Amino acid sequence: MVSTSALELAARTRRFISEQILPVEREIVVDGRPMDDALRLELQKAAKEAGVFGPLSPVEHGGLGLDTRDQAVVLEAAGTSLIGPLALNCWAPDDGNIHLLAHAANAEQARRYLAPLASGEVRSAIAMTEPAPGAGADPGMLRTTAEEAPGGWVINGAKHLTTGADGAAFVICVARTDDGPTMFLVDTDNPGMRVLRRMPTLDHTSAPGGHCEVAFSGCFVPDSAVLGEVGLGMEYAQVRLAPSRLSFCMSWLGLATRAQELAARHISRREAFGARIAEHGLAQGHLADNEIDIEASRALIARCAEVIDAEGPASSAARHHASVTKTFVSEAVWRVLDRAVQLHGGLGVCEDHLVARFLVEARAFRIYEGPSEVLRWSIARRVLRPYR
Amino acid sequence: MVSTSALELAARTRRFISEQILPVEREIVVDGRPMDDALRLELQKAAKEAGVFGPLSPVEHGGLGLDTRDQAVVLEAAGTSLIGPLALNCWAPDDGNIHLLAHAANAEQARRYLAPLASGEVRSAIAMTEPAPGAGADPGMLRTTAEEAPGGWVINGAKHLTTGADGAAFVICVARTDDGPTMFLVDTDNPGMRVLRRMPTLDHTSAPGGHCEVAFSGCFVPDSAVLGEVGLGMEYAQVRLAPSRLSFCMSWLGLATRAQELAARHISRREAFGARIAEHGLAQGHLADNEIDIEASRALIARCAEVIDAEGPASSAARHHASVTKTFVSEAVWRVLDRAVQLHGGLGVCEDHLVARFLVEARAFRIYEGPSEVLRWSIARRVLRPYR
Amino acid sequence: MVSTSALELAARTRRFISEQILPVEREIVVDGRPMDDALRLELQKAAKEAGVFGPLSPVEHGGLGLDTRDQAVVLEAAGTSLIGPLALNCWAPDDGNIHLLAHAANAEQARRYLAPLASGEVRSAIAMTEPAPGAGADPGMLRTTAEEAPGGWVINGAKHLTTGADGAAFVICVARTDDGPTMFLVDTDNPGMRVLRRMPTLDHTSAPGGHCEVAFSGCFVPDSAVLGEVGLGMEYAQVRLAPSRLSFCMSWLGLATRAQELAARHISRREAFGARIAEHGLAQGHLADNEIDIEASRALIARCAEVIDAEGPASSAARHHASVTKTFVSEAVWRVLDRAVQLHGGLGVCEDHLVARFLVEARAFRIYEGPSEVLRWSIARRVLRPYR
Amino acid sequence: MVSTSALELAARTRRFISEQILPVEREIVVDGRPMDDALRLELQKAAKEAGVFGPLSPVEHGGLGLDTRDQAVVLEAAGTSLIGPLALNCWAPDDGNIHLLAHAANAEQARRYLAPLASGEVRSAIAMTEPAPGAGADPGMLRTTAEEAPGGWVINGAKHLTTGADGAAFVICVARTDDGPTMFLVDTDNPGMRVLRRMPTLDHTSAPGGHCEVAFSGCFVPDSAVLGEVGLGMEYAQVRLAPSRLSFCMSWLGLATRAQELAARHISRREAFGARIAEHGLAQGHLADNEIDIEASRALIARCAEVIDAEGPASSAARHHASVTKTFVSEAVWRVLDRAVQLHGGLGVCEDHLVARFLVEARAFRIYEGPSEVLRWSIARRVLRPYR
Repeated sequence: MVSTSALELAARTRRFISEQILPVEREIVVDGRPMDDALRLELQKAAKEAGVFGPLSPVEHGGLGLDTRDQAVVLEAAGTSLIGPLALNCWAPDDGNIHLLAHAANAEQARRYLAPLASGEVRSAIAMTEPAPGAGADPGMLRTTAEEAPGGWVINGAKHLTTGADGAAFVICVARTDDGPTMFLVDTDNPGMRVLRRMPTLDHTSAPGGHCEVAFSGCFVPDSAVLGEVGLGMEYAQVRLAPSRLSFCMSWLGLATRAQELAARHISRREAFGARIAEHGLAQGHLADNEIDIEASRALIARCAEVIDAEGPASSAARHHASVTKTFVSEAVWRVLDRAVQLHGGLGVCEDHLVARFLVEARAFRIYEGPSEVLRWSIARRVLRPYR
Repeated sequence: MVSTSALELAARTRRFISEQILPVEREIVVDGRPMDDALRLELQKAAKEAGVFGPLSPVEHGGLGLDTRDQAVVLEAAGTSLIGPLALNCWAPDDGNIHLLAHAANAEQARRYLAPLASGEVRSAIAMTEPAPGAGADPGMLRTTAEEAPGGWVINGAKHLTTGADGAAFVICVARTDDGPTMFLVDTDNPGMRVLRRMPTLDHTSAPGGHCEVAFSGCFVPDSAVLGEVGLGMEYAQVRLAPSRLSFCMSWLGLATRAQELAARHISRREAFGARIAEHGLAQGHLADNEIDIEASRALIARCAEVIDAEGPASSAARHHASVTKTFVSEAVWRVLDRAVQLHGGLGVCEDHLVARFLVEARAFRIYEGPSEVLRWSIARRVLRPYR
Repeated sequence: MVSTSALELAARTRRFISEQILPVEREIVVDGRPMDDALRLELQKAAKEAGVFGPLSPVEHGGLGLDTRDQAVVLEAAGTSLIGPLALNCWAPDDGNIHLLAHAANAEQARRYLAPLASGEVRSAIAMTEPAPGAGADPGMLRTTAEEAPGGWVINGAKHLTTGADGAAFVICVARTDDGPTMFLVDTDNPGMRVLRRMPTLDHTSAPGGHCEVAFSGCFVPDSAVLGEVGLGMEYAQVRLAPSRLSFCMSWLGLATRAQELAARHISRREAFGARIAEHGLAQGHLADNEIDIEASRALIARCAEVIDAEGPASSAARHHASVTKTFVSEAVWRVLDRAVQLHGGLGVCEDHLVARFLVEARAFRIYEGPSEVLRWSIARRVLRPYR
Repeated sequence: MVSTSALELAARTRRFISEQILPVEREIVVDGRPMDDALRLELQKAAKEAGVFGPLSPVEHGGLGLDTRDQAVVLEAAGTSLIGPLALNCWAPDDGNIHLLAHAANAEQARRYLAPLASGEVRSAIAMTEPAPGAGADPGMLRTTAEEAPGGWVINGAKHLTTGADGAAFVICVARTDDGPTMFLVDTDNPGMRVLRRMPTLDHTSAPGGHCEVAFSGCFVPDSAVLGEVGLGMEYAQVRLAPSRLSFCMSWLGLATRAQELAARHISRREAFGARIAEHGLAQGHLADNEIDIEASRALIARCAEVIDAEGPASSAARHHASVTKTFVSEAVWRVLDRAVQLHGGLGVCEDHLVARFLVEARAFRIYEGPSEVLRWSIARRVLRPYR
């Protein structure tokens, strides 16, 4: 069950978003105010003052240290704005990286990387995905290599869709070694690493630092840059994966609830064909379908959070529930946002009304952290396992 | 959270169904063995011996007295057979009537009606729905009347789709009085009441007693036949409604999980186009969609059960969650059964393989206890309430 | 374009169905009148008198000899009753067998098999599908064999889902020979062939002769029983396939239009929540979705018919269009019937109102003549062909 | 049937788009080259040289004067690029305005407005939609007024979502007069009319001139500015409506076919999980669903075009078919583009790969020219008409 303190925190978060974040969100979406690091730090300062900063971060690093079940209600509240999770420092890829570092970093790495990340001082990235023929949805196709060199390792390879790389302080790079995939902490001022460009993706408001092309070319890192142990990169990725998928679900669900409110308000004020739009059956049908999608998403998230808390983030059960939940929620959120656009009529495609921007920003969610097709495939294999 | 004892009970129930009920189900569906009261009593005796009888019934009447959250896991286990819930005495309309009587019956009524119903000695019915222009989905159109007469009441009116009336010991009849809708306990040997016919509905295996046309014609009942108070019929109906909707969801979800198992097993054993069907992507997609529908249903049921337990079955929150859950689950179960048929190929439409019968039996679930369209309308109105 | 005479014929067919067939259909569905051969012959006699018999049959055999484009409007009209296509002698499997025999039979075979089939004197079957591990959706898995013997062939093997076998005068059996799959005309009084049972399938009203299990055991047939040439069985199956798929589409579309009319009429007469159901938005949404599904089906059928007429029934284009059309129409018809049930509310699942029976009868259409999954796979391969 | 010359023209158009337009499209989408009038004129010049300019325009104004059935194949070819229809001068709102002027303009108006519009010399707009509480989807709520003044009329009112107004030479303004809604030809240099701003809509590549807010304030126009007759504005709107809806369907269908090609090519070249993506069943399922959506759209368009040609653009049948076709095609195109994005994986949301931009540009199509909800409502009313 959700704790009372988490419910209070969620209420406080909703108020914070409503009062301090929504006006800024409007400036960004409608007036084109840039979402840069200066603004991010300003918003995070406000979140700290409001006592809502760091819901996913460990207490020892100034975070709120919530368990997964409690995170669900808080992140849903944070997600009611496109930039809310960023303000609370619980947005990708930093949320997952905090989780990963808390699990795998040694004391020195924690001091040097986890602490400033958890405090919001710096941003980070994780460089996993590669252009063809490298690792896309299939991590087994990893081509970036790390070879031992005196005192450290030399990394070579190309990455893309590296979220947040532009402006990050460090990148967690996954590379093949003779002992298997390994994670390396690479400072972005390392001369062997270059951010080539931000890729022109549909989502930008919600993605400071963009989705980038990154090149590692003779990139030397010392032994101390190995995160955890050599050869355990895929195990760590698993530790990161279910919580990261679920955080996305929580935040995007928040945005879906916001879109639903915007749509309900909009159609309650407009008339057409002799009645308020809210009285027309097909509009009501959209609202009801949205509500059903929202409640089912919320219920799945709650259940998956309980499993993660009970059995651990890398357990088989957690992974299965995270796959099911991510597939459903990413598609349900998309449907909700799409119906919200439709309920706004012609204004629904004007970014003035925000739902247009919400829809476009959300499109990638059905792809990143596992496309629905790959997730369905893995769900099916689990279902079939007893019959082999 | 579900109690440990409920989890044990659910496991015992699954075993009971598997060992003792499935063979009988096959005889009924495939060989045409009639599902009559003699068979029902035999199955219920077995359930009592297995210690799984009466999960919804009060402890003082020999039931297991589970709270709603615990019921969910037990009824899902019971529902893995079309006739499982009947064997456990947690099937409509008796389950809802037990709940209703426990809430509204006085001591004498409890002794006379609730006790034999809870023990499985008798079956019951509730006569609410009327042919046009009477009350269908809209209870406000109730036309059956009850007028005061010396020592009692005289009921006149026509009912139809009265589930289980044929062979029931008593019927709870809802009729209009000057003081509002009122519920009456009518013994089926009352000469003023007649079961005209079983209507030829798609579901029959799962519906002993059928869905009947019932006529009340100068039907005299004594004052003691009034259930609870005069004029409170709709309030009592509300008390019954959310739990009844949710019980259906639990049991039908059980059947969906069974169909999924049948399908997974079937496609694991067959080959086509050079591989086991289980290796074909579109078959895997069906299995994954089924799994997602099943998990989302389960999560919604759990959440709705928690709300009923926390806020009461007639609370506004319980009714909203029950509407959302019933709409989603009834449609999800339908999709799961339909995909299970499809995965069986040509054999999917042969009743030998059971899924064909499951599909047909389940069709009414999207209509009874509130058609999806009416539920969506009511969900939308609740969403719109703050914007009026 | 459809010819004027076909439009007139379609109008006459609608009138014939409406006046002479619908009353019988009601007796069958509601009152349980058996749909046997005596009744079939009576209905076909009436169709002959009405001048609407044999739309697919060659003119030289007393048929109307319509081209495919003209068939579309006539079969849609015939399909407005579950038993209409049977009355007109354009129902499976006889329609496809007539087409096949017209293509492949020699003069003697035409006289002996095609003539009485086209006149409605006898029924037929085609025995292609086999129980696992034989040929299901994948014809390449054919296991029934035919071995040369003095003066003829000896067939051995098991078939199932052999539509119409019970009561048929002859069966076209597909069996493997050393020279490839071959079709044989087997008289059903052949002592080497036995109809084991009618399988208990969901569809029965529309399937006289049922879907049967058939055993060939040392079944001797003379050389004259070979249909066309030895080894060309699959080629002939291709000639039969696209027209057969399309005929089903035409007839089932007719039933969908009927269900739509029944639903529209029903909701125009009933009230709920203060208005006719026809005025409620979600009911209107169902009607509109039905109309869209019906029109899209009709347009696809027309287009596919044009392709068959222009390029031949076994052309690559015809097969592609038939795959696309069959997939869409079988699913669209299912949706239309399902919504029609839903629009009838509680009465929708009573067979009194026919739509319940329509839905159940239609379920197999998404499976026979190619399950949607297999068709999608073959459509995708065609799409991908240029990129290999 | 489509004429042979139209098929040739379509082939030529496809070649023209492929060779001359696609490179420019890439510059616009990927490199940010502005889509302005200079570029439009350059592309139209190329189209004239290629002999593909003006498929919808009257022959006497230099167009190709195709009937609707022939237009279908040519516009589908033009639509394979986002900017193809613009290059051919068959894109909204000019296409509909050309059609409208050809129907309603007098000789002088044709000379002054239709001629330069048909030749591509100028662009135009139609100002119908108004901000709340004016006319949105419901034209009956029209609030812009035109009052008689000496020698002409004075127009007052606010319009928005006026497509193409920025940079147009003239606007057809719909305003209420004492004799009913009336259309006025307003030159955009009229001091009483102002384009306030381009609204920040999701579509921009495909919409030169944007969707604008326009103010009419004491805007005097002479009597000669009345298009056709006073009071017939809604009749003329009906003449324009069905062809305009259908043109959109044709062009967007072209884009859907392009996206399908891009997706098929992409997955034929990439590998994941041990095979080309094209060999994975769920990817094949998306391709097949796309193909079905494309073929059904094409078939509906063909049928609607035949009806328009046979019964006229304002006939009841044409309007019904256009409603059905527009609803289906706008939703089908959206699904196709969405699946194409999904098939591209992470690259699908990068505008480099074009499908991301296609999806965003297409979103408004389900709203403009009648949102799906309003169209469904009108389709349902037509279905219900016989049962009133």
